[in-house]
Amino acid sequence: ITDAKELLPAVCFVWQIAMIILFGIFIRYNEESDAHWIEHKTSNNISSNIENDFYFRYPSFQDVHVMIFVGFGFLMTFLKRYSFGAVGFNFLIAGFGLQWALLMQGWFHSLDPMDGKIKIGVESMINADFCVASCLIAYGAVLGKVSPVQLMVMTLFGVTLYAVEEYIILSLIHARDAGGSMVIHTFGAYYGLSISWMLYRPNLDQSKHRIGSVYHSDVFAMIGTLFLWMFWPSFNSAISDHGDGQHRAAINTYLSLAATVLTSIAISSLSQKTGKLDMVHIQNATLAGGVAVGTAAEFMLMPYGSLIVGFCCGIISTLGYIYITPFMEKYLKIHDTCGIHNLHAMPGVIGGIVGAITAAAASKGVYGTEGLANTFDFMGKWKDMMPTQQGGHQAAGLCVALCFGIGGGIIVGCILRLPIWGDAPDNSCFDDDIYWENNPPTVEYNNHMRNKAV
Amino acid sequence: ITDAKELLPAVCFVWQIAMIILFGIFIRYNEESDAHWIEHKTSNNISSNIENDFYFRYPSFQDVHVMIFVGFGFLMTFLKRYSFGAVGFNFLIAGFGLQWALLMQGWFHSLDPMDGKIKIGVESMINADFCVASCLIAYGAVLGKVSPVQLMVMTLFGVTLYAVEEYIILSLIHARDAGGSMVIHTFGAYYGLSISWMLYRPNLDQSKHRIGSVYHSDVFAMIGTLFLWMFWPSFNSAISDHGDGQHRAAINTYLSLAATVLTSIAISSLSQKTGKLDMVHIQNATLAGGVAVGTAAEFMLMPYGSLIVGFCCGIISTLGYIYITPFMEKYLKIHDTCGIHNLHAMPGVIGGIVGAITAAAASKGVYGTEGLANTFDFMGKWKDMMPTQQGGHQAAGLCVALCFGIGGGIIVGCILRLPIWGDAPDNSCFDDDIYWENNPPTVEYNNHMRNKAV
Amino acid sequence: ITDAKELLPAVCFVWQIAMIILFGIFIRYNEESDAHWIEHKTSNNISSNIENDFYFRYPSFQDVHVMIFVGFGFLMTFLKRYSFGAVGFNFLIAGFGLQWALLMQGWFHSLDPMDGKIKIGVESMINADFCVASCLIAYGAVLGKVSPVQLMVMTLFGVTLYAVEEYIILSLIHARDAGGSMVIHTFGAYYGLSISWMLYRPNLDQSKHRIGSVYHSDVFAMIGTLFLWMFWPSFNSAISDHGDGQHRAAINTYLSLAATVLTSIAISSLSQKTGKLDMVHIQNATLAGGVAVGTAAEFMLMPYGSLIVGFCCGIISTLGYIYITPFMEKYLKIHDTCGIHNLHAMPGVIGGIVGAITAAAASKGVYGTEGLANTFDFMGKWKDMMPTQQGGHQAAGLCVALCFGIGGGIIVGCILRLPIWGDAPDNSCFDDDIYWENNPPTVEYNNHMRNKAV
Repeated sequence: ITDAKELLPAVCFVWQIAMIILFGIFIRYNEESDAHWIEHKTSNNISSNIENDFYFRYPSFQDVHVMIFVGFGFLMTFLKRYSFGAVGFNFLIAGFGLQWALLMQGWFHSLDPMDGKIKIGVESMINADFCVASCLIAYGAVLGKVSPVQLMVMTLFGVTLYAVEEYIILSLIHARDAGGSMVIHTFGAYYGLSISWMLYRPNLDQSKHRIGSVYHSDVFAMIGTLFLWMFWPSFNSAISDHGDGQHRAAINTYLSLAATVLTSIAISSLSQKTGKLDMVHIQNATLAGGVAVGTAAEFMLMPYGSLIVGFCCGIISTLGYIYITPFMEKYLKIHDTCGIHNLHAMPGVIGGIVGAITAAAASKGVYGTEGLANTFDFMGKWKDMMPTQQGGHQAAGLCVALCFGIGGGIIVGCILRLPIWGDAPDNSCFDDDIYWENNPPTVEYNNHMRNKAV
Repeated sequence: ITDAKELLPAVCFVWQIAMIILFGIFIRYNEESDAHWIEHKTSNNISSNIENDFYFRYPSFQDVHVMIFVGFGFLMTFLKRYSFGAVGFNFLIAGFGLQWALLMQGWFHSLDPMDGKIKIGVESMINADFCVASCLIAYGAVLGKVSPVQLMVMTLFGVTLYAVEEYIILSLIHARDAGGSMVIHTFGAYYGLSISWMLYRPNLDQSKHRIGSVYHSDVFAMIGTLFLWMFWPSFNSAISDHGDGQHRAAINTYLSLAATVLTSIAISSLSQKTGKLDMVHIQNATLAGGVAVGTAAEFMLMPYGSLIVGFCCGIISTLGYIYITPFMEKYLKIHDTCGIHNLHAMPGVIGGIVGAITAAAASKGVYGTEGLANTFDFMGKWKDMMPTQQGGHQAAGLCVALCFGIGGGIIVGCILRLPIWGDAPDNSCFDDDIYWENNPPTVEYNNHMRNKAV
Repeated sequence: ITDAKELLPAVCFVWQIAMIILFGIFIRYNEESDAHWIEHKTSNNISSNIENDFYFRYPSFQDVHVMIFVGFGFLMTFLKRYSFGAVGFNFLIAGFGLQWALLMQGWFHSLDPMDGKIKIGVESMINADFCVASCLIAYGAVLGKVSPVQLMVMTLFGVTLYAVEEYIILSLIHARDAGGSMVIHTFGAYYGLSISWMLYRPNLDQSKHRIGSVYHSDVFAMIGTLFLWMFWPSFNSAISDHGDGQHRAAINTYLSLAATVLTSIAISSLSQKTGKLDMVHIQNATLAGGVAVGTAAEFMLMPYGSLIVGFCCGIISTLGYIYITPFMEKYLKIHDTCGIHNLHAMPGVIGGIVGAITAAAASKGVYGTEGLANTFDFMGKWKDMMPTQQGGHQAAGLCVALCFGIGGGIIVGCILRLPIWGDAPDNSCFDDDIYWENNPPTVEYNNHMRNKAV
């Protein structure tokens, strides 16, 4: 194996070349993005270009894209001296992950049997971003403690596992999961937590003084929080059905998130003797409602149902930050830098359960006959499916996501323990200095000013 | 009454539970977001899912959503030591306000007489965000001087008053106000200014040293400025008519704002002996054109008309920051932290007047017969309305907005003077320390670096 | 000529008044944004309002708008003491430039022969933003070294030159350039570099200590980077053909940019003995793939072709930062503050070449008969054009962009050397203090905290 400092360039080059080769062999435009669209349109009696799926989904795609790169990237900038690593490595692994995701998801979902090619379009890009989201969630657990090469390996396996579990949950089990409570959040969070458990550092308190924020790094993190919060309705509605499906998913998510803000703030204040608020809760727990409403967002959850989901998750997530994260670190040897257990794992599981219950309770009275078949995709081989059965399938899907997350994380964690990846020593965690050149100190400018001003 | 430190959690919990109950009783999906859409489509001969209102308005909704949370939130981060409060309390009151707005606006505008339910869709979400905007404008006047509980009370009453004045102006008086110059900005600004007047603190100069920015807090505020500026065309076009209405509103706003930038900068430079620019003007006055073009944005204002509106408002707003804000503080006892009088109140009134004049001057020659009826909604009981009459109605609408803003603000201000709300003492205004736990100092990291670097 | 400190307000006022007059004479709404749309719709058998071009392009327009104001603005905030100038002057020249661009581009492209008016709509706004982009690129070369009045002059001439070269390239030569690799990036970059060459300051090292970043200014710059990166697919697809054209352009750009991230990071790490990464490369070189895929984005470049383009440009651009920028400064007397030669000039030329090759290689087999004619606009007087000819025309277009950029830049540079523009002395470059009043020091707050905290 090569020297650690040449490992990152080597991985980037080799994997990127592999992507080019595999894309050359497998990936083509689908009929809506190919120049033959004009003929396809005529032969399928499509009356207008506006019927191209691009116009149904592209605005949502761009919102999701912002969540992946600015949302996740900036949410993790809160550490006083790891903002470059947060936003920079997030950028790296998302850039790689989305290419690999197009391939992996393509092989499972959109391989054209006629020519053995994967046909991509706007929905493929959204799905690739979704897949990457699960790896970025996992990054949150190990933020500041792993090298960029370890992150690339995590992403390689994470995307692979994701594509398989997604295929099992959505295609084989026929569970519905529009916003990915199970497929994205539950899987991604337990994947990251298991890796963090395998990589536990008993002497991490040597870097303890860097686990904290400065005033402006907390404001940077709020940029991430808000873009995630604002665009979550697009996330949960991006790949749901055209028409009422997308419309309803956006409304449900909008409402759930609003309720979460109030209960997060309430618990945050209650948890302190002084009644003050904690920025960590505002940055994170306010998002839990978006996670938890993911699966059921396209169902007839009802506006008050969305509020209830958000209400509960704001409480649970904030309590998680106060009680469960310290507990997990102390007794379970799981250090979770960003608290993804509170923001993604628990709300993801709740989202899966809410989805199962809501699906089981669906009726023709509420959905209409066509609406029920449409919403749950009771067509083809599933056309005789009953809502109660669907509820069972949803629960099965949640179990699969959990197993893949925990099992996959343990295996990948073992791989990442090999002493070849160039990770930081225990006293240099959460420190940009070891991966970033010419790291500008804040102090230099201050010294300059000090001579000049006041 | 309970102890101040338990008041915030109590308010959040109780009000959120009230929201859930009221949503359970009143709020349902409308026909475009309900699973029965598929049947509705067939029975109404709607040819394609793309005709769902979601696709006409959702991109604009997301832009408006960004303005509410990132735009208003970050615009107010300019204070050196109140960035958490700016973005955090903005988040809280917007999260509560949008729920309450859905109810209040629903009762007035979209109560279904058949079943007594409010039916919501994408347009309801935009309107709820609009309503919240008026409360966030009001927040700008009292930024740093009130407690979060006071903000919640302000929002509760603000949303209520908004729904009533909106109903009077738009439905009873039949004024048009696509971008809300009157309904949102005039009302919101005078509401906030009246409250600030009632809450005047004679000894506020004890906190004077914190009324100012640091270098990076000004850059954070520019994030807010730019997202407001860029997405204002979406704000003014979000609920205007499908087709040319939305198209024209976006163009007019785009142009007006561009002109404002130049005149704001010109006056800012002229106002200083040195010819230098003031960041406060760039952050705020550059937005005045978007406010002032709000009412007339969907009218045939003509591109040069939009430029003239923007031109004048850039001048007036910047002069307001230079002369009127200090005057109001000194002689009228109205302290206006963000200068909302210059950014929202004056431009809002100008916008109302421009709207009245433009409406009165409308003709069939310019609009076309159908276009005139369509733009001004001269249908049903208003089908014999003349443009000159419409101009009068617009002016009446402006008066209503002013009355509600000033009157409502005085009453709510009195309520907020009760000594039960836990507001900060005069020497702790503009300070995050009293509401935020574990407030990280900037200096800690610098000290760390000082030992290490240079 | 007037005193330097009154020059900026004078320019802003006079030019803005000129804009109002010219808009009054020339600019009107087009048929899709005019109130007569409802009649136009009927007479042209347009079935639905959703067919209005607004709904095809407005989401992309808003993304482009964010790139112009937040993307370019924040990308340039990286300097430790020029963040106000970066984001503030960017705001000024974009606000002016877009108005002038609507006029200049209107005279060349959309002058209605019937009434001598320019008819504007959503596509005009996108094109105006595109035109402004070329001037903002040029700003990157001279960042911190010129006065705002010089920037206004640069923009006035830049927009004028742009409109002419765009007309020659797109209309006379009939080259295609959806994402503007040639028209925007090549022209803008060489325009800026030539100006920087003409304005070379031999004693610039007197301001050397300010050419560098502080920790948080680098994080601010990442906001610019990411919004450019994320919304580039919208940039390249904003004005391409409805349907498959926009769809394909977005996919190609998405892929190219992903590949660029990996190779930029690889070269950045390889270039340092320590294997660490350089924030300058992450902020800039990661964007090169979006530039280089601009021309060919709407062609059948194929997904792997996009990856190859991105792969190469990440390498070339990063190497440019390491070797070419210092070389140009030392030997060619061209100081390039932001490194636009690496981010826009070289990738722009590559993009032109890729476009020429891809066009020449186009075939009816790949595009379909109708698709070929549609994609390359082989209609009207160009209906007998062959792809190989088109390749030649593309190459000719690239030459025109280069000539206009270099030639125009030299002439405008000469004008800007006149000693009347109030530019900063050599020892005050890269310093906000000379253009911004009440410049808040970072240190003030720190001193305050120092007494209080720790």
